[in-house]
Amino acid sequence: MPKKVLIDCDPGIDDALAIAFAHGRPELELVGLTTVAGNVGLAHTTNNARCLAEFYGMDVPIAAGADRPLVREGVLADQVHGGNGLGGVVLPAAATPVVDRHAVDFLIDELAAAPGQISLLAVGPLTNIALAVRKEPRIVEWAREFVIMGGSYTRGNRTPAAEFNVLADPEAAAVVFDAGWRTTMIGLDLTAQARATADVRDRFAVLGRLESELLSPILDFYGRHPHYREHGPAVHDACAVAYALDPGLFTTVPARVDVEIHGRFTSGMTVTDFAAPAARHNAEVATVLDTERFWDRLLEAFSHVATGMS
Amino acid sequence: MPKKVLIDCDPGIDDALAIAFAHGRPELELVGLTTVAGNVGLAHTTNNARCLAEFYGMDVPIAAGADRPLVREGVLADQVHGGNGLGGVVLPAAATPVVDRHAVDFLIDELAAAPGQISLLAVGPLTNIALAVRKEPRIVEWAREFVIMGGSYTRGNRTPAAEFNVLADPEAAAVVFDAGWRTTMIGLDLTAQARATADVRDRFAVLGRLESELLSPILDFYGRHPHYREHGPAVHDACAVAYALDPGLFTTVPARVDVEIHGRFTSGMTVTDFAAPAARHNAEVATVLDTERFWDRLLEAFSHVATGMS
Amino acid sequence: MPKKVLIDCDPGIDDALAIAFAHGRPELELVGLTTVAGNVGLAHTTNNARCLAEFYGMDVPIAAGADRPLVREGVLADQVHGGNGLGGVVLPAAATPVVDRHAVDFLIDELAAAPGQISLLAVGPLTNIALAVRKEPRIVEWAREFVIMGGSYTRGNRTPAAEFNVLADPEAAAVVFDAGWRTTMIGLDLTAQARATADVRDRFAVLGRLESELLSPILDFYGRHPHYREHGPAVHDACAVAYALDPGLFTTVPARVDVEIHGRFTSGMTVTDFAAPAARHNAEVATVLDTERFWDRLLEAFSHVATGMS
Amino acid sequence: MPKKVLIDCDPGIDDALAIAFAHGRPELELVGLTTVAGNVGLAHTTNNARCLAEFYGMDVPIAAGADRPLVREGVLADQVHGGNGLGGVVLPAAATPVVDRHAVDFLIDELAAAPGQISLLAVGPLTNIALAVRKEPRIVEWAREFVIMGGSYTRGNRTPAAEFNVLADPEAAAVVFDAGWRTTMIGLDLTAQARATADVRDRFAVLGRLESELLSPILDFYGRHPHYREHGPAVHDACAVAYALDPGLFTTVPARVDVEIHGRFTSGMTVTDFAAPAARHNAEVATVLDTERFWDRLLEAFSHVATGMS
Repeated sequence: MPKKVLIDCDPGIDDALAIAFAHGRPELELVGLTTVAGNVGLAHTTNNARCLAEFYGMDVPIAAGADRPLVREGVLADQVHGGNGLGGVVLPAAATPVVDRHAVDFLIDELAAAPGQISLLAVGPLTNIALAVRKEPRIVEWAREFVIMGGSYTRGNRTPAAEFNVLADPEAAAVVFDAGWRTTMIGLDLTAQARATADVRDRFAVLGRLESELLSPILDFYGRHPHYREHGPAVHDACAVAYALDPGLFTTVPARVDVEIHGRFTSGMTVTDFAAPAARHNAEVATVLDTERFWDRLLEAFSHVATGMS
Repeated sequence: MPKKVLIDCDPGIDDALAIAFAHGRPELELVGLTTVAGNVGLAHTTNNARCLAEFYGMDVPIAAGADRPLVREGVLADQVHGGNGLGGVVLPAAATPVVDRHAVDFLIDELAAAPGQISLLAVGPLTNIALAVRKEPRIVEWAREFVIMGGSYTRGNRTPAAEFNVLADPEAAAVVFDAGWRTTMIGLDLTAQARATADVRDRFAVLGRLESELLSPILDFYGRHPHYREHGPAVHDACAVAYALDPGLFTTVPARVDVEIHGRFTSGMTVTDFAAPAARHNAEVATVLDTERFWDRLLEAFSHVATGMS
Repeated sequence: MPKKVLIDCDPGIDDALAIAFAHGRPELELVGLTTVAGNVGLAHTTNNARCLAEFYGMDVPIAAGADRPLVREGVLADQVHGGNGLGGVVLPAAATPVVDRHAVDFLIDELAAAPGQISLLAVGPLTNIALAVRKEPRIVEWAREFVIMGGSYTRGNRTPAAEFNVLADPEAAAVVFDAGWRTTMIGLDLTAQARATADVRDRFAVLGRLESELLSPILDFYGRHPHYREHGPAVHDACAVAYALDPGLFTTVPARVDVEIHGRFTSGMTVTDFAAPAARHNAEVATVLDTERFWDRLLEAFSHVATGMS
Repeated sequence: MPKKVLIDCDPGIDDALAIAFAHGRPELELVGLTTVAGNVGLAHTTNNARCLAEFYGMDVPIAAGADRPLVREGVLADQVHGGNGLGGVVLPAAATPVVDRHAVDFLIDELAAAPGQISLLAVGPLTNIALAVRKEPRIVEWAREFVIMGGSYTRGNRTPAAEFNVLADPEAAAVVFDAGWRTTMIGLDLTAQARATADVRDRFAVLGRLESELLSPILDFYGRHPHYREHGPAVHDACAVAYALDPGLFTTVPARVDVEIHGRFTSGMTVTDFAAPAARHNAEVATVLDTERFWDRLLEAFSHVATGMS
C-alpha cells in the first residue's frame, strides 16, 4: 500500500519538481496539494499547482491557503522563480478548480480522516501549517510524520543567517517547530547536495515534453541565479519528497531547533543545537544525502510522469 | 431594528458583566459568543460562557476558539479572576453544548452572512480575531465596526507597559491592528473611569438573584485585587459593550497604534501615536467616558436581565 | 557650605536655563560642566556651554565628552533647540578653552577628589555617565547623589514611548540605571509641571540683558514647537537643578526603572514599576512639583545672575 | 625593524599561547598587553597576564581594563579555561605591577604615540576596544591594522549561533565592527584549522619548562572540554598573532559583518555577508589557514621563548 503524502507548497520551480517526483513514485499516494504565498503570491502559487497537476496528468485535490504570513508582511522570491513562479514558463490553463475549502481546513480534515497515515510535507513558508496547528492542535498526533524543506544549520540563502521559507514567516516556523511533533528539517546544508548539474540535466533529455516544455526552461531560468551559477541549481523541495519516499537516503541528527523571531540580522534563522539534551530535541536534522541514489529515484519518477503524459 | 453584536470573550469577571450588559439592552442583538483562552484556560472560559448564558436566560450560540496564543506561550490572569475565572462562583452546569464549529469559522460565517451589520467586540486576547483575519481577510470589510477592550496609551496593568489582553497575545494584537479596519480601542485609560464603587454596588442591590448569586460575589472577589482596592474594580469589558450601544458616551481620538512584539520590558504595549499623520491612523482611541450615563445604561440592562431571570 | 554640583549637559535651551539656575543659587557650587552630544552635536553643545558660562560671568571648568551614543547612531533634537542648540541666538565667542581632559576623566577625577560631596546631575543623553561608570565603577559610591532629567513613566516626547535623552542613548541609560546607585529620575511627567507660561515670562522682564539677549529669544523659539504651543515650554533640565537645590520641592516615589533597548516601537522607554519589590528599586521617581516655589527659586537665581552680569 | 603589536586579551589558555607566540618572534615587538574580563574575571586575567609575562621572561607593560561588558552582565568561560583561567596551573607570583593607567587610556596613548605603526590584536571580549573607540575615535586611523580573534561565519561555540568573545559583549563588538576601520576577523571557521593535535603536542616535547610547567598541563586541561575531545583543542588566539606575523598564512575574503545584539537565540552572532556590495564591507574574514606553516612558525617562537627561560 502506498504511503499517503500531503504537500503544502508554493510553486515555485523546485516545487514543480517535487510534485512531479511525488506523482511519479508508485510508493507514494498524493492525497492533496495545499498552496501558500511564498516564492510568489498565492494567486500564482495556486494557479501553478493547478496547471502543473493537469500538465502532469494528476488527479489530486488542491486547496488554496494563506495569502500572507502569520504576523509580518510578505516577502517574495520572484527574482529566483520568475514573476509567475515558473521562470516565465506558461503552462496550459487549468480546468479543474480548487476545492471549496481553505487549505487549513482541507489539511485538518485529511489528517483527521486518516490518523497516523499521512506524511505531511511542507516545502513553502509554514503559514498554513501554523494556522492548522493553532486551529486543531491534534494534527500533531494525526500526522504520520512531518517533513519540511526549510532552514539551515550553518548559513542562509535569502540572508546570511536565514533560509527563504523560514525567513518568509518566522513566527509560523516557530509555532511549527514548537508544536510537539518531531520535525524533520531538510535544510540548505542538505539540499546543497542535490544540484541539477549538467550531468543530471543530460539524463533529463529522454523525458520528452516534460523536459522540453517544463524542466528545461525552468531549470535554465533557475540556474541563472547567482546562487546557482557555479554549482548548479539545488532542487530543494524535491529532497523533502525523497525523504518521505526513502529516509534511508538521508543521514539525520537529532537536535533542538529554535527559530529566531527577534533578531535584527538573524530573523528567520533556524538556530540548531546538536548538543541540546535529548529531552529538548524537537527535530531530526538532515545532514548528508545519498546524492547518487537520490537522482536515480527522481529520474525513475520523472520517467513515469513523462510516460503518463504521452 | 437592534444592532447585531458578536462578542469574542474570555469570561472572566468583567466579561460576565459585559455579556449581561449586551443581553439586557433591547438596542443590541447578540448573535453569538466566541471564546478564547485568556483570563483562564479555554475550558473554563467556554464553560463560563455557557453557564452565564443559561444563568442569564439567553439563547445564543457559543463557539469555542483558540486554546493558546498565536505564537507564544499562554499567560493567565487567574490571580485576578480566580481559578475558575468567576472568582470561585460556581453557576449551575450548562445544558446547551457549544456549536459544532470552531470560533474562527463561526465568526467568519456570521460576518459573511450579514456584511456591514455586525459589530464585532473583542474583550479577550485577540487570538481568534487574528486567526480569522488571516483565514478570511474579508471579515475586515464585513464587520460593521470592530471594538476591543485592550491596551492603554499610558501605563499597563499586567506589566508597567502592557495591558493583559494585548500582553497575552501581542502577535495577534499586531495582526488585528494592522488588518486594515479602524479599531476602536477601549483601553485602561478609559476603563479606569468605569469602576464599580460602593455607590455603584449599592444600586445593584435591587437585582435579586443576579446580584446575590453572581454580581456580589464576583465583584467582591475582583475588588480584593491590589489594583482595585483603592478606587474599586474597573469593569473593563463592559465598556466595549457600552461603546457598541452608544458611542456618544465616549470621547475618542484618532491615532496610530502599534503593538510592540519585540521588547524585553514592553512586549504587548500598545504604542499610541496621537501625532501620527492621518494617513497612518488605524484606531480610534477612547479617552473619556461619560461615567454617569454609562452606569445608568448598565443598570437598566441589568434590571432587564434580572427581570427575565425571575 | 554650598552643595557641590557637577552638571553633564548638552546645551540646549533648557540646559541654558539649568546652568543659570545652578550658577545663581548661593546654596550650590558648580564644580564643572561636562558636555555630550544630544540636542545638537558635541561641537555645538561644548561651544554653547563655554559661551553661556562667559555670558553668565561664571568661572567653571568645562570638559568635552562623547560625540556619539554608546552603541547606536546619534539622533538630534535640533528641531526643538535650533541648529546651533540655542534657537539661533549667537552669544559672544568664548575665550576660555575647555579643560585638557575628556569629560569622562574629568568627571571621575572630580568625584574621586571629593567622595560623598558632589551631586551629579545629568541632563542630556547618558553617554558620558555610562562610560565613566564602566571605566571607574567606584563613582557610584563617590557621588553624593545622582539626578537625571530624562525618561517618563507614562508617555514620551520624541516617540510615543520614549523621552529624548533616554531615546538618544538607551544602552547608556540602561547602564546608568543598573549601576547600583539610586537614580533620581526627573522625567516628563514631572517637567510638564514646569512650563514657562506667559505669567512666568512676565516675571523675567526685570532681568535686563539676561532676558533680552538670551531668555526671551530662546524661549520664543522653544515655545513655537508643537509640543509647547498650548501649555508653554517645559524647562526640563532646570528641574534637575531644583532637585539638587531643594528636594522638598518634589514628591518622589521609589520604583524599579528598566530601560527598553530591544523594542521596535519602545526603544528608550523607561519602564517604571512602582509595584516592584523594594529590593529591586533602583530609582526615586519624581511625580509632583511644587510649581510655585520652583519658579520663585528659579527667579531668585536668575535675578542673581542678571545682577552679576550688569 | 620589528612590527609593533599591542594585544588586548583575557588569559585564558589560548591567550597564554598567543602571548608566547608574539614574544618569541623577532619580527614582532610587543608594546603592551591590556586585559579585560572574559574567559575569567578581570582580577584573574590581569594576574595571569603578569605571571605569564614574568614566566616567559618578558619586559612588557600591562594595563588592566574593563571588569565587565559594555552594557550587559558578564559571562565567563571558566568551564573551558578553569577557575583561574589557566586550567588550574599556578605560576609563580608576579613581581611587576600593572601600569598606573586604565587599559583604555594605555591603548589610546600607545596608538597616539605611534600612528600607523601598531597592529592592534584583540583576542578577548571587545569591551576595552569599544570604550577606546568611543573615548578617542581617532584610534581607528592610528592603528596600523586591527585583528580580532572572535566570531564565526557558520556556527558558534558557546551557543549554536555565537562565538564566546562576541557573545560575551555583543554591543562592544557591534561598536568595533562599525568603527570605520577594516577589521580582520579570525573566527572559529579559521581557528578550527589550528588544533593542538597529538602530533603537534609531540613537537612541544623539546620545550623544557615551558612545556612541562605550562603548555602540557594547560593543553591537557583544555583538551578535555567536549568541544575539543575529538579533534584536539583549537589554539584560537594564537591565530591572531600568526596573522600579524604573516598574513600570507591566511586566505581572507572581504565581507560585511554585522553583530546581532537583539536576537533571543542569536545574540552575539557575527552575521557575515560575503555578497554585500564592496562599499559596505567592514571586514576581512579569514577562511583558510596554512596549518603546517602556522605550526612551524609557532614552534620556532616557542623554542625561542624556551631558550630565553633557561
